[in-house]
Amino acid sequence: MVESLTIRLAWRDDLQAMVALLADDELGAARECFADPLPEVYARAFETIEKDPNNELVVVEAAGEILGCLQVTYIPHLVRRGSWRAQVEGVRVHRNARGQGVGRALFEWVRARARQRGCHLLQLTTDKSRADAHRFYENLGFAASHEGMKLKLEA
Amino acid sequence: MVESLTIRLAWRDDLQAMVALLADDELGAARECFADPLPEVYARAFETIEKDPNNELVVVEAAGEILGCLQVTYIPHLVRRGSWRAQVEGVRVHRNARGQGVGRALFEWVRARARQRGCHLLQLTTDKSRADAHRFYENLGFAASHEGMKLKLEA
Repeated sequence: MVESLTIRLAWRDDLQAMVALLADDELGAARECFADPLPEVYARAFETIEKDPNNELVVVEAAGEILGCLQVTYIPHLVRRGSWRAQVEGVRVHRNARGQGVGRALFEWVRARARQRGCHLLQLTTDKSRADAHRFYENLGFAASHEGMKLKLEA
Repeated sequence: MVESLTIRLAWRDDLQAMVALLADDELGAARECFADPLPEVYARAFETIEKDPNNELVVVEAAGEILGCLQVTYIPHLVRRGSWRAQVEGVRVHRNARGQGVGRALFEWVRARARQRGCHLLQLTTDKSRADAHRFYENLGFAASHEGMKLKLEA
């Protein structure tokens, strides 16, 4: 299966499959709302991201099925001598497609793209409860060098 | 001193002071280059950030002196029902102005601005070696719920 993977920017038609992936997750289940029709907020978010040159939604597909997705944000920084970084969020691989190199292929694509865009660092945060994810990222060469701190903002 | 703090978006004229703050730091010293004239990369980064509606450089000043700075990036996400986040990077308070509420005032400003822009979460990563910073952020209400993972990209 890995041979036939296609990795590309997401199209509007992939949105349903992407939200299904985001919701089919122990943490995502409580945060997302996968319904038919899909809540309008997702379509609005998709359009906002698509229009922003510094944000991209990426999918990996095989035989017409979306097997995984993620979002990349390219950030111009003042720190580190004004260097750019790529930041990844919302990584999901379909539960039936895990352990087959899909996630690794997706990250290799992102890494090459980030380098092409002149980024010096690829970064992400991952919930401390996701032990499998930590192993996956460490195998890709990521170092858990930082604390990832979050503060909820009231509406 | 805290009474007379002004917090505002950075101007081009603040760049020298901001890079001085970024460089005057145990980790920043090796990463930045504070020289007169300032390396051109910083001016280019400043312009890029200034033009991007989703990135802001913020300074806190008192009596015409820049006492602190940070960068905020506003990120439109697909996850969490298409919500926006504000992410903070490059936080510095002048070594002579620490412990006087300058950092707290800066973060209160950012928090209010992020909320105004519709963000649901304020986030940052901080090097695991910065124990003082962790206490500071936890006092502000941040939870160290995530691993912050970084991968250097070769040129």
